Amino acid sequence: MIRQFTLQTSKRNEFIDITARIQALLEEVSEGVITVFSPHTTTAVTINENADPDVPRDILKKLEELIPQRDNFSHMEGNSDAHIKASLFGSSVRVIVKDGKLLLGTWQSIFFCEFDGPRTRKFYLQF
Amino acid sequence: MIRQFTLQTSKRNEFIDITARIQALLEEVSEGVITVFSPHTTTAVTINENADPDVPRDILKKLEELIPQRDNFSHMEGNSDAHIKASLFGSSVRVIVKDGKLLLGTWQSIFFCEFDGPRTRKFYLQF
Amino acid sequence: MIRQFTLQTSKRNEFIDITARIQALLEEVSEGVITVFSPHTTTAVTINENADPDVPRDILKKLEELIPQRDNFSHMEGNSDAHIKASLFGSSVRVIVKDGKLLLGTWQSIFFCEFDGPRTRKFYLQF
Repeated sequence: MIRQFTLQTSKRNEFIDITARIQALLEEVSEGVITVFSPHTTTAVTINENADPDVPRDILKKLEELIPQRDNFSHMEGNSDAHIKASLFGSSVRVIVKDGKLLLGTWQSIFFCEFDGPRTRKFYLQF
Repeated sequence: MIRQFTLQTSKRNEFIDITARIQALLEEVSEGVITVFSPHTTTAVTINENADPDVPRDILKKLEELIPQRDNFSHMEGNSDAHIKASLFGSSVRVIVKDGKLLLGTWQSIFFCEFDGPRTRKFYLQF
Repeated sequence: MIRQFTLQTSKRNEFIDITARIQALLEEVSEGVITVFSPHTTTAVTINENADPDVPRDILKKLEELIPQRDNFSHMEGNSDAHIKASLFGSSVRVIVKDGKLLLGTWQSIFFCEFDGPRTRKFYLQF
Protein backbone atom coordinates (compact mmCIF):
# COMPACT_ATOMS: atom_id res chain seq x y z
CA MET A 1 0.00 0.00 0.00
CA ILE A 2 1.26 3.49 -0.90
CA ARG A 3 0.33 6.69 0.93
CA GLN A 4 1.24 10.25 0.04
CA PHE A 5 1.75 12.90 2.73
CA THR A 6 2.18 16.63 2.34
CA LEU A 7 4.00 19.00 4.65
CA GLN A 8 4.91 22.67 4.78
CA THR A 9 8.49 23.54 5.64
CA SER A 10 9.30 26.90 7.20
CA LYS A 11 13.05 27.44 6.75
CA ARG A 12 15.70 26.91 4.09
CA ASN A 13 17.27 24.09 6.15
CA GLU A 14 15.04 22.18 8.54
CA PHE A 15 14.44 18.71 10.00
CA ILE A 16 10.79 17.81 10.58
CA ASP A 17 9.90 14.78 12.70
CA ILE A 18 7.41 12.63 10.73
CA THR A 19 7.53 9.54 12.95
CA ALA A 20 4.07 9.96 14.46
CA ARG A 21 2.38 10.47 11.07
CA ILE A 22 3.91 7.24 9.82
CA GLN A 23 3.28 5.22 12.98
CA ALA A 24 -0.40 6.21 12.87
CA LEU A 25 -0.91 4.13 9.70
CA LEU A 26 0.83 0.96 10.77
CA GLU A 27 -1.45 -0.58 13.37
CA GLU A 28 -2.58 -3.35 11.07
CA VAL A 29 0.89 -4.28 9.82
CA SER A 30 2.01 -7.45 11.59
CA GLU A 31 5.56 -7.59 10.19
CA GLY A 32 7.46 -6.04 7.31
CA VAL A 33 9.64 -3.18 6.18
CA ILE A 34 8.30 0.25 5.31
CA THR A 35 9.94 2.65 2.89
CA VAL A 36 9.68 6.42 3.41
CA PHE A 37 10.62 8.19 0.18
CA SER A 38 11.24 11.87 -0.69
CA PRO A 39 10.28 12.64 -4.32
CA HIS A 40 12.28 15.90 -4.39
CA THR A 41 15.93 16.49 -5.37
CA THR A 42 16.64 19.01 -2.59
CA THR A 43 15.12 17.14 0.36
CA ALA A 44 15.97 13.84 2.05
CA VAL A 45 14.80 11.46 4.75
CA THR A 46 16.99 10.45 7.68
CA ILE A 47 16.82 8.80 11.09
CA ASN A 48 18.39 10.52 14.07
CA GLU A 49 17.76 11.81 17.60
CA ASN A 50 14.87 14.15 18.36
CA ALA A 51 15.09 14.14 22.17
CA ASP A 52 17.47 17.11 22.17
CA PRO A 53 16.66 19.71 19.47
CA ASP A 54 20.37 20.63 19.50
CA VAL A 55 21.13 17.41 17.60
CA PRO A 56 19.30 18.33 14.34
CA ARG A 57 20.57 21.90 14.83
CA ASP A 58 24.21 20.77 15.09
CA ILE A 59 23.79 18.49 12.06
CA LEU A 60 22.38 21.30 9.90
CA LYS A 61 25.02 23.77 11.10
CA LYS A 62 27.93 21.47 10.33
CA LEU A 63 26.46 20.62 6.92
CA GLU A 64 26.15 24.33 6.10
CA GLU A 65 29.79 24.75 7.07
CA LEU A 66 31.00 21.86 4.89
CA ILE A 67 28.68 22.64 1.97
CA PRO A 68 27.86 26.37 1.96
CA GLN A 69 25.15 27.69 -0.33
CA ARG A 70 27.48 30.16 -2.09
CA ASP A 71 30.45 28.16 -3.27
CA ASN A 72 31.42 28.71 -6.87
CA PHE A 73 28.73 26.35 -8.21
CA SER A 74 27.60 26.35 -11.87
CA HIS A 75 23.92 25.38 -11.44
CA MET A 76 22.01 28.62 -12.03
CA GLU A 77 19.27 28.03 -9.46
CA GLY A 78 21.74 28.62 -6.63
CA ASN A 79 20.77 25.49 -4.72
CA SER A 80 23.54 23.06 -5.59
CA ASP A 81 24.31 22.79 -1.87
CA ALA A 82 20.81 21.38 -1.36
CA HIS A 83 21.25 18.82 -4.15
CA ILE A 84 24.51 17.63 -2.59
CA LYS A 85 22.97 17.30 0.87
CA ALA A 86 20.03 15.38 -0.64
CA SER A 87 22.36 12.76 -2.10
CA LEU A 88 24.51 12.52 1.04
CA PHE A 89 21.48 11.92 3.28
CA GLY A 90 19.56 9.81 0.79
CA SER A 91 16.08 9.89 -0.66
CA SER A 92 14.62 7.19 1.56
CA VAL A 93 14.82 5.24 4.79
CA ARG A 94 13.56 1.79 5.60
CA VAL A 95 12.28 0.79 9.00
CA ILE A 96 11.31 -2.68 10.16
CA VAL A 97 7.77 -3.00 11.55
CA LYS A 98 6.83 -5.57 14.18
CA ASP A 99 3.36 -6.02 15.68
CA GLY A 100 2.18 -2.71 14.23
CA LYS A 101 5.09 -0.71 15.68
CA LEU A 102 8.11 0.87 14.01
CA LEU A 103 11.13 -1.04 15.34
CA LEU A 104 13.09 2.13 16.10
CA GLY A 105 15.65 2.55 18.85
CA THR A 106 14.78 4.56 21.97
CA TRP A 107 16.26 7.78 20.60
CA GLN A 108 15.43 7.37 16.92
CA SER A 109 12.98 9.54 15.01
CA ILE A 110 12.30 9.71 11.27
CA PHE A 111 13.03 13.18 9.90
CA PHE A 112 12.00 14.80 6.65
CA CYS A 113 15.04 16.96 5.72
CA GLU A 114 14.39 20.24 3.93
CA PHE A 115 17.50 21.73 2.31
CA ASP A 116 15.94 24.37 0.02
CA GLY A 117 12.78 25.63 1.72
CA PRO A 118 10.48 26.94 2.73
CA ARG A 119 8.17 25.03 0.37
CA THR A 120 5.19 22.71 0.29
CA ARG A 121 6.66 19.23 0.05
CA LYS A 122 5.46 15.66 0.00
CA PHE A 123 6.71 12.21 0.87
CA TYR A 124 5.57 8.66 0.17
CA LEU A 125 5.13 5.74 2.53
CA GLN A 126 5.06 2.21 1.13
CA PHE A 127 4.19 -0.84 3.26
CA MET B 1 13.20 -11.20 -9.89
CA ILE B 2 16.85 -10.14 -10.15
CA ARG B 3 18.43 -8.56 -13.23
CA GLN B 4 22.07 -7.69 -13.81
CA PHE B 5 23.09 -4.74 -15.98
CA THR B 6 26.53 -3.76 -17.24
CA LEU B 7 27.77 -0.32 -18.11
CA GLN B 8 31.00 1.31 -19.24
CA THR B 9 32.09 4.42 -17.42
CA SER B 10 34.31 6.95 -19.16
CA LYS B 11 35.81 9.15 -16.42
CA ARG B 12 37.25 8.78 -12.94
CA ASN B 13 34.22 10.55 -11.42
CA GLU B 14 30.94 10.36 -13.32
CA PHE B 15 27.17 10.13 -12.82
CA ILE B 16 25.32 7.99 -15.37
CA ASP B 17 21.53 8.18 -15.61
CA ILE B 18 20.15 4.61 -15.49
CA THR B 19 16.48 5.48 -15.00
CA ALA B 20 15.34 4.47 -18.51
CA ARG B 21 17.06 1.08 -18.37
CA ILE B 22 15.30 0.31 -15.10
CA GLN B 23 11.90 1.67 -16.13
CA ALA B 24 11.97 -0.49 -19.26
CA LEU B 25 11.69 -3.65 -17.13
CA LEU B 26 8.87 -2.61 -14.86
CA GLU B 27 5.79 -2.56 -17.07
CA GLU B 28 4.35 -5.67 -15.50
CA VAL B 29 4.93 -4.62 -11.88
CA SER B 30 1.63 -3.42 -10.41
CA GLU B 31 2.98 -2.23 -7.06
CA GLY B 32 6.13 -2.71 -5.01
CA VAL B 33 9.57 -1.40 -4.19
CA ILE B 34 12.59 -1.98 -6.40
CA THR B 35 16.17 -2.08 -5.15
CA VAL B 36 19.02 -0.89 -7.37
CA PHE B 37 22.32 -2.17 -5.96
CA SER B 38 25.97 -1.44 -6.82
CA PRO B 39 28.23 -4.49 -6.16
CA HIS B 40 31.43 -2.40 -6.19
CA THR B 41 33.21 -0.65 -3.31
CA THR B 42 34.11 2.47 -5.32
CA THR B 43 30.75 3.16 -6.96
CA ALA B 44 27.33 4.06 -5.59
CA VAL B 45 23.72 4.65 -6.61
CA THR B 46 21.92 7.91 -5.92
CA ILE B 47 18.80 9.85 -6.90
CA ASN B 48 19.12 13.47 -7.98
CA GLU B 49 18.34 15.96 -10.74
CA ASN B 50 19.30 15.29 -14.34
CA ALA B 51 17.46 18.19 -16.03
CA ASP B 52 20.48 20.48 -15.66
CA PRO B 53 23.81 18.67 -16.18
CA ASP B 54 25.39 21.28 -13.91
CA VAL B 55 23.78 19.56 -10.91
CA PRO B 56 25.77 16.30 -11.13
CA ARG B 57 28.81 18.38 -12.12
CA ASP B 58 28.53 20.58 -9.02
CA ILE B 59 28.00 17.53 -6.80
CA LEU B 60 31.13 15.80 -8.12
CA LYS B 61 33.19 18.99 -7.93
CA LYS B 62 32.26 19.68 -4.31
CA LEU B 63 32.92 16.05 -3.37
CA GLU B 64 36.37 16.23 -4.96
CA GLU B 65 37.05 19.36 -2.93
CA LEU B 66 35.96 17.80 0.38
CA ILE B 67 37.55 14.40 -0.31
CA PRO B 68 40.51 14.85 -2.68
CA GLN B 69 42.16 11.81 -4.21
CA ARG B 70 45.61 12.66 -2.82
CA ASP B 71 45.19 13.16 0.89
CA ASN B 72 47.63 11.31 3.08
CA PHE B 73 45.72 8.02 2.86
CA SER B 74 47.26 4.65 3.77
CA HIS B 75 45.44 2.37 1.31
CA MET B 76 48.03 1.57 -1.37
CA GLU B 77 45.68 1.54 -4.34
CA GLY B 78 45.30 5.33 -4.16
CA ASN B 79 41.52 5.25 -4.32
CA SER B 80 40.50 5.75 -0.68
CA ASP B 81 38.59 8.87 -1.76
CA ALA B 82 36.40 6.65 -3.94
CA HIS B 83 35.74 4.23 -1.07
CA ILE B 84 34.67 7.14 1.16
CA LYS B 85 32.34 8.57 -1.48
CA ALA B 86 30.82 5.11 -2.03
CA SER B 87 29.87 4.84 1.65
CA LEU B 88 28.58 8.43 1.85
CA PHE B 89 26.31 7.97 -1.18
CA GLY B 90 25.34 4.38 -0.40
CA SER B 91 25.36 1.13 -2.32
CA SER B 92 21.67 1.11 -3.19
CA VAL B 93 18.48 3.08 -3.67
CA ARG B 94 14.89 1.97 -3.37
CA VAL B 95 12.10 3.36 -5.47
CA ILE B 96 8.40 2.69 -5.10
CA VAL B 97 6.67 1.36 -8.24
CA LYS B 98 2.99 1.99 -8.98
CA ASP B 99 1.11 0.78 -12.06
CA GLY B 100 4.36 -0.17 -13.79
CA LYS B 101 5.96 3.25 -13.28
CA LEU B 102 8.78 4.37 -10.99
CA LEU B 103 7.17 6.75 -8.48
CA LEU B 104 9.90 9.37 -8.90
CA GLY B 105 9.46 13.12 -8.52
CA THR B 106 9.41 15.35 -11.61
CA TRP B 107 13.12 16.13 -11.38
CA GLN B 108 14.42 12.82 -10.03
CA SER B 109 16.65 10.44 -11.95
CA ILE B 110 18.50 7.36 -10.75
CA PHE B 111 22.25 7.72 -11.20
CA PHE B 112 25.00 5.13 -11.15
CA CYS B 113 27.93 6.95 -9.50
CA GLU B 114 31.43 6.10 -10.68
CA PHE B 115 34.18 7.29 -8.31
CA ASP B 116 37.19 5.32 -9.61
CA GLY B 117 36.69 4.89 -13.35
CA PRO B 118 36.80 4.47 -16.18
CA ARG B 119 35.88 0.80 -15.84
CA THR B 120 33.32 -1.76 -16.90
CA ARG B 121 30.81 -1.89 -14.05
CA LYS B 122 27.57 -3.64 -13.21
CA PHE B 123 24.51 -3.12 -11.08
CA TYR B 124 21.62 -5.26 -9.93
CA LEU B 125 17.90 -4.60 -10.00
CA GLN B 126 15.61 -6.57 -7.70
CA PHE B 127 11.81 -6.38 -7.95
CA MET C 1 11.57 -12.87 9.94
CA ILE C 2 13.38 -10.47 12.28
CA ARG C 3 16.57 -11.28 14.18
CA GLN C 4 18.38 -9.17 16.74
CA PHE C 5 22.16 -9.31 17.12
CA THR C 6 24.35 -7.80 19.81
CA LEU C 7 27.96 -6.74 19.50
CA GLN C 8 30.58 -5.07 21.67
CA THR C 9 32.54 -2.23 20.12
CA SER C 10 36.02 -1.42 21.41
CA LYS C 11 36.84 2.08 20.16
CA ARG C 12 35.13 5.44 19.73
CA ASN C 13 35.19 5.06 15.92
CA GLU C 14 35.25 1.56 14.50
CA PHE C 15 34.00 -0.54 11.58
CA ILE C 16 33.06 -4.13 12.45
CA ASP C 17 32.50 -6.67 9.68
CA ILE C 18 29.15 -8.39 10.29
CA THR C 19 28.83 -10.15 6.93
CA ALA C 20 29.46 -13.67 8.23
CA ARG C 21 26.92 -13.36 11.06
CA ILE C 22 24.28 -12.31 8.54
CA GLN C 23 25.17 -14.87 5.88
CA ALA C 24 24.93 -17.66 8.48
CA LEU C 25 21.17 -17.11 8.74
CA LEU C 26 20.29 -17.00 5.07
CA GLU C 27 20.75 -20.55 3.83
CA GLU C 28 17.04 -21.13 3.47
CA VAL C 29 16.26 -17.86 1.66
CA SER C 30 15.80 -18.58 -2.04
CA GLU C 31 15.44 -14.98 -3.21
CA GLY C 32 14.73 -11.62 -1.66
CA VAL C 33 16.19 -8.50 -0.12
CA ILE C 34 17.45 -8.33 3.46
CA THR C 35 17.53 -5.17 5.55
CA VAL C 36 20.26 -4.65 8.17
CA PHE C 37 19.20 -1.86 10.54
CA SER C 38 21.03 0.03 13.30
CA PRO C 39 18.64 1.14 16.09
CA HIS C 40 21.10 3.71 17.49
CA THR C 41 21.55 7.39 16.60
CA THR C 42 25.36 7.32 16.76
CA THR C 43 26.01 4.17 14.72
CA ALA C 44 25.35 3.22 11.09
CA VAL C 45 25.57 0.33 8.65
CA THR C 46 27.58 0.52 5.44
CA ILE C 47 29.01 -1.66 2.69
CA ASN C 48 32.66 -1.29 1.73
CA GLU C 49 35.94 -3.14 1.30
CA ASN C 50 37.38 -5.33 4.03
CA ALA C 51 40.24 -6.95 2.11
CA ASP C 52 42.65 -4.17 3.08
CA PRO C 53 42.12 -2.90 6.66
CA ASP C 54 43.53 0.45 5.49
CA VAL C 55 40.25 1.15 3.69
CA PRO C 56 38.05 1.38 6.81
CA ARG C 57 40.96 3.15 8.56
CA ASP C 58 41.21 5.80 5.82
CA ILE C 59 37.42 6.29 5.81
CA LEU C 60 37.32 6.86 9.57
CA LYS C 61 40.36 9.15 9.50
CA LYS C 62 38.95 11.35 6.76
CA LEU C 63 35.57 11.52 8.50
CA GLU C 64 37.26 12.60 11.73
CA GLU C 65 39.04 15.32 9.79
CA LEU C 66 35.85 16.62 8.12
CA ILE C 67 33.68 16.25 11.24
CA PRO C 68 35.87 16.53 14.36
CA GLN C 69 34.43 15.67 17.77
CA ARG C 70 35.21 19.11 19.24
CA ASP C 71 33.70 21.65 16.90
CA ASN C 72 31.61 24.32 18.53
CA PHE C 73 28.54 22.08 18.79
CA SER C 74 25.57 22.83 21.08
CA HIS C 75 24.47 19.30 22.00
CA MET C 76 25.68 18.80 25.59
CA GLU C 77 26.61 15.14 25.29
CA GLY C 78 29.62 16.03 23.13
CA ASN C 79 28.81 13.50 20.41
CA SER C 80 27.23 15.61 17.69
CA ASP C 81 29.97 14.44 15.33
CA ALA C 82 28.70 10.87 15.81
CA HIS C 83 25.09 11.90 15.08
CA ILE C 84 26.20 13.59 11.85
CA LYS C 85 28.21 10.57 10.71
CA ALA C 86 25.23 8.31 11.49
CA SER C 87 22.98 10.28 9.14
CA LEU C 88 25.62 10.55 6.40
CA PHE C 89 26.24 6.79 6.40
CA GLY C 90 22.63 5.79 7.01
CA SER C 91 20.84 3.57 9.47
CA SER C 92 20.45 0.58 7.17
CA VAL C 93 21.65 -1.28 4.12
CA ARG C 94 19.77 -3.63 1.84
CA VAL C 95 21.37 -6.58 0.12
CA ILE C 96 19.80 -8.84 -2.49
CA VAL C 97 19.88 -12.55 -1.63
CA LYS C 98 19.97 -15.27 -4.28
CA ASP C 99 20.04 -19.03 -3.61
CA GLY C 100 20.82 -18.46 0.05
CA LYS C 101 23.80 -16.17 -0.61
CA LEU C 102 24.22 -12.42 -0.16
CA LEU C 103 24.64 -11.01 -3.68
CA LEU C 104 27.65 -8.89 -2.70
CA GLY C 105 30.52 -7.93 -4.99
CA THR C 106 33.91 -9.61 -4.60
CA TRP C 107 35.26 -6.87 -2.33
CA GLN C 108 32.10 -5.94 -0.46
CA SER C 109 31.54 -6.54 3.25
CA ILE C 110 28.74 -5.29 5.49
CA PHE C 111 30.10 -3.13 8.31
CA PHE C 112 28.50 -2.03 11.55
CA CYS C 113 29.85 1.52 12.06
CA GLU C 114 30.48 2.68 15.61
CA PHE C 115 30.92 6.44 15.95
CA ASP C 116 30.55 6.90 19.72
CA GLY C 117 31.91 3.78 21.38
CA PRO C 118 32.99 1.69 22.99
CA ARG C 119 29.53 0.38 23.89
CA THR C 120 27.35 -2.68 23.71
CA ARG C 121 25.29 -2.26 20.55
CA LYS C 122 22.69 -4.16 18.58
CA PHE C 123 21.42 -4.43 15.05
CA TYR C 124 18.41 -5.99 13.37
CA LEU C 125 18.18 -8.24 10.35
CA GLN C 126 14.90 -8.56 8.49
CA PHE C 127 14.36 -11.10 5.69
